[in-house]
Amino acid sequence: MVSRETYRDGMARMAAAVNVITTQGPAGPGGFTASAVCSLTDDPATLLVCVNLSSRQSEILRGNGVLCVNTLAADQAPIAAMFSTRDVTMEARFALGGWSTLATGSPVLEGAVVSFDCRIVERLERGTHAVILCEALAVQLGHGEAALVYFDRHFRSMTGGDQGSR
Amino acid sequence: MVSRETYRDGMARMAAAVNVITTQGPAGPGGFTASAVCSLTDDPATLLVCVNLSSRQSEILRGNGVLCVNTLAADQAPIAAMFSTRDVTMEARFALGGWSTLATGSPVLEGAVVSFDCRIVERLERGTHAVILCEALAVQLGHGEAALVYFDRHFRSMTGGDQGSR
Repeated sequence: MVSRETYRDGMARMAAAVNVITTQGPAGPGGFTASAVCSLTDDPATLLVCVNLSSRQSEILRGNGVLCVNTLAADQAPIAAMFSTRDVTMEARFALGGWSTLATGSPVLEGAVVSFDCRIVERLERGTHAVILCEALAVQLGHGEAALVYFDRHFRSMTGGDQGSR
Repeated sequence: MVSRETYRDGMARMAAAVNVITTQGPAGPGGFTASAVCSLTDDPATLLVCVNLSSRQSEILRGNGVLCVNTLAADQAPIAAMFSTRDVTMEARFALGGWSTLATGSPVLEGAVVSFDCRIVERLERGTHAVILCEALAVQLGHGEAALVYFDRHFRSMTGGDQGSR
């Protein structure tokens, strides 16, 4: 058995992009910060997002059936913080940043390094969390070259371009 | 519809830790590089790993029922490259780096920033890939402070410690 604390210490060492997951539809607007996001298949273009079932966000996602994964740029740490702070209203969260829409009506964040606008195709509940499989209906590439990464319990900046090895 | 190329361009902008997934058991040794890994729940400590079904590795994982997620340190890019090059034998792959074992017998990489030694608890096949849910039976924290991150189609270094914002 691995304790929750040991597991969290371990996961803190697995660097991850920081995403704001947004949604809009009959269940109303939703938005939260998530790092547990990854690609499943590229044909069809499908990502998965892990969501805590105890959060209201999980129900809003279920009600809307759509979401947008906005992968944050290095200068968007304040947005990550706002969308991960409890008891901040959706109105206050979305007051930060500029927003548009693509295919589903879910908010698309201006200046994100990339946004994947998706319909939810499956939801698998396992213990405290759900794995949400979603198909990208539209992808918007940002212009910036620096991404926000969460590693060792801090937000950090990762620069793109041709430095580094392939 | 999002083309495979557009989706890949988008995913290239989602920074990710680089992991070598290893396994050992009745089906023999296996090992491959994967960035599609994330945390699902912390109690029980459960990760998910996405695996291409067309790869032999997927069958080896199924046969062994165990795997170890080794999250690479910044100086382990050559190991990431070796474990992602087709037609390199397992013997050649494991000749690079030092290896030990923890709970399951799967190879644990010396110098990794963290290793999660796991038993596979569920396998969900969806299209070309499987989502493998695995419970961590042991976690080994590394000593290094710099992680390997894949972003914008290059391996890059991410330094830990107290720089950055919480």
